[in-house]
Amino acid sequence: MKKHLLGLEGYTAEEIIDILDHAKAFREVLERDVKKLPTLRGVTIANIFFEPSTRTRMSFELAEKRLSADVVNFSASTSSLSKGESLRDTVENIEAMKVDMVVIRHSAVGAPHFIARRCNSIVINGGDGAHEHPTQALLDFYTMREKFGKIKGLKVTLVGDALHSRVIRSNVFGLKALGAKVTLCAPTTLLPYGTEDWGIEVTSDIEEALEGSNVVNIMRLQLERQTAGYVPSLREYAAIWGVDSARVALMDKDRLVMHPGPMNRGIEITQEVADSADAVILDQVTNGVAIRMAVLYLLAPRRKEGKPEDAE
Amino acid sequence: MKKHLLGLEGYTAEEIIDILDHAKAFREVLERDVKKLPTLRGVTIANIFFEPSTRTRMSFELAEKRLSADVVNFSASTSSLSKGESLRDTVENIEAMKVDMVVIRHSAVGAPHFIARRCNSIVINGGDGAHEHPTQALLDFYTMREKFGKIKGLKVTLVGDALHSRVIRSNVFGLKALGAKVTLCAPTTLLPYGTEDWGIEVTSDIEEALEGSNVVNIMRLQLERQTAGYVPSLREYAAIWGVDSARVALMDKDRLVMHPGPMNRGIEITQEVADSADAVILDQVTNGVAIRMAVLYLLAPRRKEGKPEDAE
Amino acid sequence: MKKHLLGLEGYTAEEIIDILDHAKAFREVLERDVKKLPTLRGVTIANIFFEPSTRTRMSFELAEKRLSADVVNFSASTSSLSKGESLRDTVENIEAMKVDMVVIRHSAVGAPHFIARRCNSIVINGGDGAHEHPTQALLDFYTMREKFGKIKGLKVTLVGDALHSRVIRSNVFGLKALGAKVTLCAPTTLLPYGTEDWGIEVTSDIEEALEGSNVVNIMRLQLERQTAGYVPSLREYAAIWGVDSARVALMDKDRLVMHPGPMNRGIEITQEVADSADAVILDQVTNGVAIRMAVLYLLAPRRKEGKPEDAE
Repeated sequence: MKKHLLGLEGYTAEEIIDILDHAKAFREVLERDVKKLPTLRGVTIANIFFEPSTRTRMSFELAEKRLSADVVNFSASTSSLSKGESLRDTVENIEAMKVDMVVIRHSAVGAPHFIARRCNSIVINGGDGAHEHPTQALLDFYTMREKFGKIKGLKVTLVGDALHSRVIRSNVFGLKALGAKVTLCAPTTLLPYGTEDWGIEVTSDIEEALEGSNVVNIMRLQLERQTAGYVPSLREYAAIWGVDSARVALMDKDRLVMHPGPMNRGIEITQEVADSADAVILDQVTNGVAIRMAVLYLLAPRRKEGKPEDAE
Repeated sequence: MKKHLLGLEGYTAEEIIDILDHAKAFREVLERDVKKLPTLRGVTIANIFFEPSTRTRMSFELAEKRLSADVVNFSASTSSLSKGESLRDTVENIEAMKVDMVVIRHSAVGAPHFIARRCNSIVINGGDGAHEHPTQALLDFYTMREKFGKIKGLKVTLVGDALHSRVIRSNVFGLKALGAKVTLCAPTTLLPYGTEDWGIEVTSDIEEALEGSNVVNIMRLQLERQTAGYVPSLREYAAIWGVDSARVALMDKDRLVMHPGPMNRGIEITQEVADSADAVILDQVTNGVAIRMAVLYLLAPRRKEGKPEDAE
Repeated sequence: MKKHLLGLEGYTAEEIIDILDHAKAFREVLERDVKKLPTLRGVTIANIFFEPSTRTRMSFELAEKRLSADVVNFSASTSSLSKGESLRDTVENIEAMKVDMVVIRHSAVGAPHFIARRCNSIVINGGDGAHEHPTQALLDFYTMREKFGKIKGLKVTLVGDALHSRVIRSNVFGLKALGAKVTLCAPTTLLPYGTEDWGIEVTSDIEEALEGSNVVNIMRLQLERQTAGYVPSLREYAAIWGVDSARVALMDKDRLVMHPGPMNRGIEITQEVADSADAVILDQVTNGVAIRMAVLYLLAPRRKEGKPEDAE
């Protein structure tokens, strides 16, 4: 594995599958009574979240603590950034405190890459602007592979705000490497410039996009997009691009409905679909902890002990 | 013990006394140099506080860490709730991360019960709206029993805002089960509908209420009650319902003054009474940690090791 | 060592050097793969920060966790203080929860001293108003001694807002005890009343102050000082008191540039100086963790095991 996990752009199928294979062992640890491994004892991890987050921050924190790391959290509101310090100085300071690994979420595209260049600490991208969110995409792939055995050849449809979504971008990079057939469906106002070069199908027609798909991965509609004029109204978005049971019925019989959460029930996904047998939204959450444990394990500064099979 | 601790309504004297007995062993652990037990090693606990709290959150966190649990905190201000996610989705997510136990404080009555029905995690109510705050009442009972040996037959007077107080409600449920003689004293504007069915004495006359009492448990006056018109003025509240030395003198010679904190010194309790030998307000705080350790111990998913007598 | 660390006023050279000597052993631990010692196992520490802080809070938290303490954090915004509770009641509560050690930052001068008088817990001052910030000064001394072997006889120039700076005050107390020759340079509007009694050189002329100095320790300019009328403009402050390469060239050839951070690059220090070989600003940060580990170790309630040489 590379030194950092900054994004899935440039990852090969082999590299991704190696992470998924390791996650499998950690996924089993999560079913045990004692979900704790000594793997990262004495390793210090800082979770630096410059944007609010519940699930990603908690998922990382649980993964870290279950691997016995020492964890410190900091969020922008309590940070020196409010005193006008540069990102570079903040991060160099954290490194100077001999923090081994940094999980960072930041609104600026490339912030984790900037830090990785400047810093000896190992950097994991917890989401940077509208760029990448690699652990989210990895847990999506894990969930797909769990159901279908492999990802190569799967028809995967990504629905939603491709202009602002880092989840879509990381999904596209990884899914192409893994050999899936990817379709992106979004209102044209929420498509970024240049998607014709992404090497995937792009459409604004949800029925066409879902026809025969094995997986639909539905993005959250940021509600503030409406006031910003990207979508005519929430009701119209729900009517035109929302995924309901009739649309799910257009998919292959062998199918999964996925969503990175938090859901707007009744907007991008109906209540019925969210709670249907096709939906694996909570499995994604569980798999996310396993993926993050695997990534931490693979990137950890030393790995002499504490493999999943050594669980206490 | 039941699977969850949602409230004291329906608890029997035996069930309550079992918790108090266990707390006694943990109370002794708190006097040791090393206040740490391996009881909850590998158990993950989420403290989910949708309302601000210092002492209850810290008390639970200390109890959890002293039992060697892995602890993650989250508070509403940094949560997805600000993104409009439902309580149900938030909690199902936390459960999907394989959190074993959840301590929740929420402004909505019944929120912990809702979660307990939906979730496999073990749920402890850290205060729900104006409904129940069971660990607070249990620590009150512990403190009373420590002084008097038993609670049966004690004359206990609860003073203050019964309309909004979850502490009063949990006290009433538990004290009745334990066989105490309970009197409730509050301005009529701060009495909820239906107290005549609670099976206790109710009065607005503080002197009458305190006459011969063994325990007075004084509730905090939420200062915003004045602007909402529930009390004429803080000064008048202090004069009519505030507990001062002259009023304490009406109680039995064998007596305790209690308050769940934080106190408004000079409003519901005078400086003199708060600092008097009758006051056990800081003992309540200490006992609270022991009670929470006992509740966590009794509800923990597995309990093979780490009894108080195994302390390191 | 004394029971608490409230400030460096009154400390002797021997007492300070004892702390620096202990920090040396912990500084070496920070270079190991496993930066973890069992020293404070079972010891509970509360970090109580009534003012926002990134680096001091994180530095203490890392030091505590690397010594295996159980750590609870609380910050003013989530505390009962917003409900109007007194500092005394808040702290007595924390003590009643059997917290062994308290690290406190507070905007009021003397808050840690007040607590130390009232409380059995061991108190460490993490910064009180414009009064003292002893661990910051200790890490400054550690950094100076690392370079020069000793502090006695060094020419140390402190530059910046002496009126509001607790770092300057703690530096002055300690440096005088250690036998350094101290010069203070600030705009006269930012000099407190009575500096003529501090027993140091005081000047507003930066070139005069730096001439032949071994160390310059540059304070952050709080940007709000400008709107409060203490400095004419940021640009003028930078021109008259900012430390640039030309001014550093006036110092002794054997020299250090220090800054407690966070820096305003381009105001009190130029980009070039901040990134020069003379600057040891990130060393200060690393040394800060070691100093805090040493202070915690020396003040800990019991110290039978877990010396640095016992590292796992």
